Amino acid sequence: MTCPAPIRKYDSVVLGHGSGGRLSRDLIADVFRPAFANGQPFAIEDQATLPFPASGRLAVTTDSFVVRPLIFPGGDIGSLAVHGTVNDLAVGGAEPLYLAASFILEEGLDIRILELVCASMRAACDAVPLPLVTGDTKVVDRGKGDGIFITTTGVGVVPTGINLSAAFARPGDRVVVSGTLGDHGIAILAAREGIELETTLESDSASLAGLARDILGASRAVRCMRDPTRGGLSSALNEIAAASNVGIVLTEDRIPLRPEVRGACELLGLDPLYVANEGKLVAIVDAEETNRVLEAMLRNERGRDARVIGEVVDRHPGVVTMRSVVGGERIVPLLAGEQLPRIC
Amino acid sequence: MTCPAPIRKYDSVVLGHGSGGRLSRDLIADVFRPAFANGQPFAIEDQATLPFPASGRLAVTTDSFVVRPLIFPGGDIGSLAVHGTVNDLAVGGAEPLYLAASFILEEGLDIRILELVCASMRAACDAVPLPLVTGDTKVVDRGKGDGIFITTTGVGVVPTGINLSAAFARPGDRVVVSGTLGDHGIAILAAREGIELETTLESDSASLAGLARDILGASRAVRCMRDPTRGGLSSALNEIAAASNVGIVLTEDRIPLRPEVRGACELLGLDPLYVANEGKLVAIVDAEETNRVLEAMLRNERGRDARVIGEVVDRHPGVVTMRSVVGGERIVPLLAGEQLPRIC
Repeated sequence: MTCPAPIRKYDSVVLGHGSGGRLSRDLIADVFRPAFANGQPFAIEDQATLPFPASGRLAVTTDSFVVRPLIFPGGDIGSLAVHGTVNDLAVGGAEPLYLAASFILEEGLDIRILELVCASMRAACDAVPLPLVTGDTKVVDRGKGDGIFITTTGVGVVPTGINLSAAFARPGDRVVVSGTLGDHGIAILAAREGIELETTLESDSASLAGLARDILGASRAVRCMRDPTRGGLSSALNEIAAASNVGIVLTEDRIPLRPEVRGACELLGLDPLYVANEGKLVAIVDAEETNRVLEAMLRNERGRDARVIGEVVDRHPGVVTMRSVVGGERIVPLLAGEQLPRIC
Repeated sequence: MTCPAPIRKYDSVVLGHGSGGRLSRDLIADVFRPAFANGQPFAIEDQATLPFPASGRLAVTTDSFVVRPLIFPGGDIGSLAVHGTVNDLAVGGAEPLYLAASFILEEGLDIRILELVCASMRAACDAVPLPLVTGDTKVVDRGKGDGIFITTTGVGVVPTGINLSAAFARPGDRVVVSGTLGDHGIAILAAREGIELETTLESDSASLAGLARDILGASRAVRCMRDPTRGGLSSALNEIAAASNVGIVLTEDRIPLRPEVRGACELLGLDPLYVANEGKLVAIVDAEETNRVLEAMLRNERGRDARVIGEVVDRHPGVVTMRSVVGGERIVPLLAGEQLPRIC
């Protein structure tokens, strides 16, 4: 990280940093402004006012991030809070335009951690690129929070002519995934529980804005896209199957898994279809256009392991199944509870 | 509150309610959908896509709410989370269009409290009116949160021709406040600490969207507006004085205070200029247009105690002062820390 070097009056967060008074102003001046300034005068209004394209529809998405630990292999809560919201816009076919971020800090938080997280958010924003246009900070008493919670809200524009929905899948469509599954969830779990994997597995946390753009540029026969985060691929596909009233059949040996994820899942009794991803998407595509979409994905760094993993069927509407290597077919239900709490 | 009456599987929040799986779906079906459904199909996408007016500028604001206690005289964290964000849009001259809400729930939270808070949010939204278009829920382990934190993000449109900024105040302008100061802060303090006031003082938590519309309809010579929340009137005016490089002089006996707020402040050693409001605004207005603006405010329920409390001067730029009843003038500095933590 690039550390701004003001003489800080506090090494850790105090309640007064959330007061709206001079300490709040100091926190903005010492931490947020160095991290997020972009050559424009730093906003002094309570809201950002911004231009908006004359055509298209507005897209809005919001997510809170409570991941534990705050910093993990491949990312941290700051980059994750940017990627998660960017990806929710991207899979809806929206071009990300603006980001808002609100912080809930726990009294006693080391300000260097906050600086690191802000620098990481900034780098993630710059990579999209996406300007952070407004924000807020609250501080809660020690023991009433957990270091840092971040809520990001993304505003984007869905260009005229793009219309994706979980309700648009039709029998015959193909299910395409952009790469290996479960990397984020297993990386977090390993970091949290101190599990030694053979190699250091990194979270796949990344922006999918470019990949989504490439996919939609290649074909208009994309029915919908999802980023399979909490609840994994299973939750995303169960939603689509229910919304479109179709069945979805996956082919087990087509599911892309890193060996270390496969190994960790076997060891821990986890099903990789339920493990969270933060840099992958699944697309439902008209069969005839699938090759065109796949080629576009393979040319993008974020889609170089893309492949078809299943298809949409008219059998068992609302149900997702998996065809195993030996030929059986089992139901892949929506998971009831929590395999891995606080994964994002 | 109107309580939806499904047979609930859980009386309190469990970690699985944040899993993205079936329990998350149940929480949406049992709590969020009954509270927020508006006759439209409840969203199944990760983002809302929405129409936007062809002219004007987009306004975006975000705030986290961590108020303690969750329920207080005159409101609760749900209505407050709506009003706070609506008011940030309104004082910027924006018409509120859409609201996003993200919840961070603590494991063990009584679901009836969540239902009450959601019903209250819905009522506050309906009163604006403002549709809640997208949301998110995360659950943190017991002892890592504090019941409910809510982050709301508001999207609005600033009509062409409206241009307000804290940097626009000019010497000679008048400072107009919409009503009594400090009601929210003292109501929260009394509820939290069990202080008995002579009457039950209620928070002023309310939407200022209508009042702001009336003000801007009455005159285009409004320089800027602020809702003096955390840090109170003092913080708002210090920001304006600094941004406009002007002085501001308040007249002590013009400051509107409820007797019970005045009494509590004297008793507790608090300065009402620093106590939070959640249903008041301060406007800086061209002197010649002040009467016109004041008349519009007095006709609105939220502005019926409106009055001129001071003026903008070219002396002491960046500094706010108060002229006392006996004639002295003292500086009203930006408060360093926290008079009342977790007030919003």
